[in-house]
Amino acid sequence: MNDIRTVEANEFIGQQVRLQGWLHNLRRLGGVNFIVLRDGWGTIQAVTENEADLAPLTDLALGSVIRLTGQVIANAQAPDGLELQQPVVEVVTPVLEASPLPLAKKRLNAALPTLLDHAVVANRHPARRAIFRLAAGTMAGFRATLSARHFTEVQTPKIVASATESGANVFKLDYFGRPAYLAQSPQFYKQIMVGVFERVFEVGPVFRAEPHDTVRHINEYVSLDVEFGFIDDHFTVMALLREVIAGIFDHLTTHYAADLALLEANLPVILPQIPHIHFADAQQLILARHGADAGSVAAGEPDLSPQDERRLGEWAWQEYGSDFLFVSGYPMVKRPFYTHPDPQRPAYSNSFDLLFRGTELVTGGQRLHRYDDYLAALARAGHSPEPFTAYLEAFRYGMPPHGGFAIGLERLLMQLLGLPNLRLATLFPRDLNRVSP
Amino acid sequence: MNDIRTVEANEFIGQQVRLQGWLHNLRRLGGVNFIVLRDGWGTIQAVTENEADLAPLTDLALGSVIRLTGQVIANAQAPDGLELQQPVVEVVTPVLEASPLPLAKKRLNAALPTLLDHAVVANRHPARRAIFRLAAGTMAGFRATLSARHFTEVQTPKIVASATESGANVFKLDYFGRPAYLAQSPQFYKQIMVGVFERVFEVGPVFRAEPHDTVRHINEYVSLDVEFGFIDDHFTVMALLREVIAGIFDHLTTHYAADLALLEANLPVILPQIPHIHFADAQQLILARHGADAGSVAAGEPDLSPQDERRLGEWAWQEYGSDFLFVSGYPMVKRPFYTHPDPQRPAYSNSFDLLFRGTELVTGGQRLHRYDDYLAALARAGHSPEPFTAYLEAFRYGMPPHGGFAIGLERLLMQLLGLPNLRLATLFPRDLNRVSP
Repeated sequence: MNDIRTVEANEFIGQQVRLQGWLHNLRRLGGVNFIVLRDGWGTIQAVTENEADLAPLTDLALGSVIRLTGQVIANAQAPDGLELQQPVVEVVTPVLEASPLPLAKKRLNAALPTLLDHAVVANRHPARRAIFRLAAGTMAGFRATLSARHFTEVQTPKIVASATESGANVFKLDYFGRPAYLAQSPQFYKQIMVGVFERVFEVGPVFRAEPHDTVRHINEYVSLDVEFGFIDDHFTVMALLREVIAGIFDHLTTHYAADLALLEANLPVILPQIPHIHFADAQQLILARHGADAGSVAAGEPDLSPQDERRLGEWAWQEYGSDFLFVSGYPMVKRPFYTHPDPQRPAYSNSFDLLFRGTELVTGGQRLHRYDDYLAALARAGHSPEPFTAYLEAFRYGMPPHGGFAIGLERLLMQLLGLPNLRLATLFPRDLNRVSP
Repeated sequence: MNDIRTVEANEFIGQQVRLQGWLHNLRRLGGVNFIVLRDGWGTIQAVTENEADLAPLTDLALGSVIRLTGQVIANAQAPDGLELQQPVVEVVTPVLEASPLPLAKKRLNAALPTLLDHAVVANRHPARRAIFRLAAGTMAGFRATLSARHFTEVQTPKIVASATESGANVFKLDYFGRPAYLAQSPQFYKQIMVGVFERVFEVGPVFRAEPHDTVRHINEYVSLDVEFGFIDDHFTVMALLREVIAGIFDHLTTHYAADLALLEANLPVILPQIPHIHFADAQQLILARHGADAGSVAAGEPDLSPQDERRLGEWAWQEYGSDFLFVSGYPMVKRPFYTHPDPQRPAYSNSFDLLFRGTELVTGGQRLHRYDDYLAALARAGHSPEPFTAYLEAFRYGMPPHGGFAIGLERLLMQLLGLPNLRLATLFPRDLNRVSP
């Protein structure tokens, strides 16, 4: 007997096989009965005209764990062109209560709070779990692209001694009676590790105590972090980022075609050179195109609003046919102290955001690398150097010009799939009002 | 000009190349001068009899970031059989202060507190960073082995609503004015995800507020977690674990031979079938071999002490020539509530530890999978089911027999390399007294 997965059935046409999984659906259509089994990878339909074959399922609810034995037959009418005939049904774990969500429906139409309250069950729906399979593929593509370029993976601590990186919006915890904090990013550690491995990446959780209640913020998310040495400036970083984004999408299209198809993903156009606009030019562009309606730009704010980003995303599409747009040179005043200024225009930075379909997906840039520059930057920012002593050792004892970036995993999926809320791209989201499930 | 990494130099014999990195060492030996450059991957020696070539390095300390241009020459006397001749030295980032640790020494002889206080610099030492390159290789081997077996990677939340898994030893944090906790393990979530993907793994941080101050405990570490469905019992889990361990070491020996050699790693013997002893038999064995000196076993404790584990490790080596030993069937009373009992001897569990050279490396087993069994187990343990509502949904709406395990990344490296302290296998360890660097 061949124990197979649903997605392997096409290799077993004409053979007896056994499959295990969940009772995904059961339909009795006047003499013909369809049993749909869902395993960890897909679904398969079994068909029988013999009512007695269904006897083991009497009184059981959908979701029961079952085993199906039968013969794989090619049938152009069946989903995926095949079905199981003369099935023998065994029950592994009976379920007696109806699921709180209609998992057998092609689209899982439920209000967001219901979906999130019952995420444990909701994530079993084929269209929900496809999102999280793409998350796995995104991480794998990220790692593969960087490993091929001699980057080393690191895992840096998430419990940190001081709320140093931005000073605000950190979660505080009780560490054996002393205060400690959850890392907002691996920023300091990944820079430190450039001193060790030159090129590093990390995939891990980051924690932001931002009291935002928007569709595009959550308080714990997965960050895909990169940092590397011996760059010329932020353009070296942007060139690598383009390769990483292309590598991720290559990996997804090669290995996750079925999930992309199921979710009707609109794959992005990644031009050989992603178009680029300087922050100052971006503001001019918004003023010119939107005049009195230019909002934060008209008000002279040294940052771009979500509306500005959307408008720039539309412009990049119209002008270049590009789903991505680099905005570089954000004002130093809006960037953290370790940001490297533009040597030509020191009020602007050698940093960038990458917009994906009009939403910030990645932030990155060149960092300071000289010890004296750090001391000066900390003094300018009004920080005492003392809590930064360990971090500063990296620069005191030799660091090359370096930079990096961080991609928000859930943001990438949200934009790729056109999801209306970041929570829908998160297995078990944490927000202002939710720490469970 | 070829910009190359040190480890690629053997492909460029006879050619002009340029390398970038840190000034690792500088030796003036009566007319012949050796400059050793360290980049992110290795070191290379440049040689010159012309004192003037060293002029850019005047007054600079080791650790300065430099660029070396020269010709690669094969020389059997040189380290790795090659050296750079007629080097041109450029300084990228000067360092003016001597490093707090002698990085140029072959062995980094420093007291543990000094090493840890200056981990930012210490981890640059070739023998230190080789450990962390093996950490990267271990994660990669783990993922590759499981991906080939159709496991899906997940990233589950680290901020959780209740201190539910063991009820003690959790870090508490302030989550927008409410209490929340750091996950001690992804246990509940990986089980939940078996309901989605059937086979899952996770690589991520776990947090233990255990007030232990020993050489083999730290409070934040990297856990390599696996969970999968449709098992027969814990022996299915143990069989997979053997494949994962073998897969990790295959990956290391294939891709990290230089690091293993540098650290003089003593590669383990992984037998086709890892030997196995039941907990009750292990206690009998210790009593028989150590009699009056049998400590916790003689006292009738339902657990094994570190000394017991060491003795069992020695026995496995003597008896089977195996570096690994499974101890299965730990008493239910010492295992968490979700542990599946042995159907034949319900006081014992379908769980196991894997000892690696006499130290617990992995804990795993079969879990309960029936909803009613969970309700009964929680009642027996004196827990209200209420805080477990979301977790219990996984079982209420259908779960197959399943199990899994968790490998401690740092433990694996400690045992492989014979390190005297787990902190030496951790980039930036967190313990009772240390949250920095």
